[in-house]
Amino acid sequence: MTYTLVLLRHGESEWNALNLFTGWVDVSLSEKGRAEAAHGGELLASSGVLPDVVHTSLLRRAINTANIALDVADRHWIPVKRSWRLNERHYGALQGKDKKATLEEFGEQQFMTWRRSFDVPPPPIEFGSQYSQDGDPRYADLGDDMPRTECLKDVIARFLPYWNESIVPDLKSGKTVLVAAHGNSLRAVVKHLDGISDDDIVGLNIPTGMPLVYQLDEDLKPITPGGEYLDPEAAKAAAEAVANQGR
Amino acid sequence: MTYTLVLLRHGESEWNALNLFTGWVDVSLSEKGRAEAAHGGELLASSGVLPDVVHTSLLRRAINTANIALDVADRHWIPVKRSWRLNERHYGALQGKDKKATLEEFGEQQFMTWRRSFDVPPPPIEFGSQYSQDGDPRYADLGDDMPRTECLKDVIARFLPYWNESIVPDLKSGKTVLVAAHGNSLRAVVKHLDGISDDDIVGLNIPTGMPLVYQLDEDLKPITPGGEYLDPEAAKAAAEAVANQGR
Repeated sequence: MTYTLVLLRHGESEWNALNLFTGWVDVSLSEKGRAEAAHGGELLASSGVLPDVVHTSLLRRAINTANIALDVADRHWIPVKRSWRLNERHYGALQGKDKKATLEEFGEQQFMTWRRSFDVPPPPIEFGSQYSQDGDPRYADLGDDMPRTECLKDVIARFLPYWNESIVPDLKSGKTVLVAAHGNSLRAVVKHLDGISDDDIVGLNIPTGMPLVYQLDEDLKPITPGGEYLDPEAAKAAAEAVANQGR
Repeated sequence: MTYTLVLLRHGESEWNALNLFTGWVDVSLSEKGRAEAAHGGELLASSGVLPDVVHTSLLRRAINTANIALDVADRHWIPVKRSWRLNERHYGALQGKDKKATLEEFGEQQFMTWRRSFDVPPPPIEFGSQYSQDGDPRYADLGDDMPRTECLKDVIARFLPYWNESIVPDLKSGKTVLVAAHGNSLRAVVKHLDGISDDDIVGLNIPTGMPLVYQLDEDLKPITPGGEYLDPEAAKAAAEAVANQGR
């Protein structure tokens, strides 16, 4: 018995295109992002990797990526589950800031620490600031779980309960599970599955709109470490482009 | 304590525009249909009727209507539930046929009987015919529940278990419930809520893309019989247009 997990990072958002830190700000997909999602759906359909259930974050760029890809793959009708635990990393006070201006203001070392350290979060976002999610009804029940900033370590800590309580049972029931989420919440998945070190995970870039398929054994260990992209050459080129973001 | 139910009929589909009988054939929204869905979302947002959970059929024209409307209303992140019991009436052997040609071939009396009688279904669709859903994975678990044709009475019979087991509990928990579905599955809802007779329900036309809001009392009886459209004048004009379909 093997289990099938498909990871799909959302396509380009309007703020990716503008080079702004996004985090929990709920921006839309760009036209390019919608096309990436549709292409992801074509890859699912042509490879016959057909999800039986989809898990998404509470952010529209992941939700709409799933909606578009599943519609193209003729799987729009499958059950849907959503959780804030699949959200992108909360970027704290950097949310809404221009990446290039932030780099110039704080210097390369601080910039890269915020972007790529495992356990150093940016400064927390202020209450009531323009790009905070204070008062957003979708997070009304979070209480003390509501982040004001996060490092990747924090993302992994809030992701793991959802993995264990919601995704693992779907996998173990034999369903092909699609997780449509974000660069950092998907890093959390990959780190957990492949046992990647704290130092190495921050350098791992998952390309947008490209389904990454893991076949898992009975202990939910990857049969092929790192999984397999449905379009490996395009995935490699795209990952390199992501690594250069903000430079 | 009152409960809030919102009904939303999908916008125009590609086959509505072509004047074909659709039923369970899984056609897409037309551009006009997508615009209708977006307008429905604007009405929800501007009136402050914000769904906490959405129930849809398994057909993409209802699913995408919900996705578009909820995205516009900033409620794309709410929980989603789907069931074949909210599907459009199965149109049997008429699925895929031109409405005008069918009217000419069979005559007005037979045509209107199939379209508008309460308990006379069209002839069943043949196994393996082009527009049957044989082998469709979304219906693989239906067994003997899988229809080959339906009259409105049949739709009501398969809708009611879902109403009682899935929609009523959401209402009773205090959630604002959106049901995004079809002309006949929404007739089933309205007949049940308003106690409309078998003779009268077939003449009731629910316009596309216009949220119909029911406030329900503790016994789930409508406080205002027939509910209230968020845009009543537009709804009246649209219902008259629907009544003339196929003529």
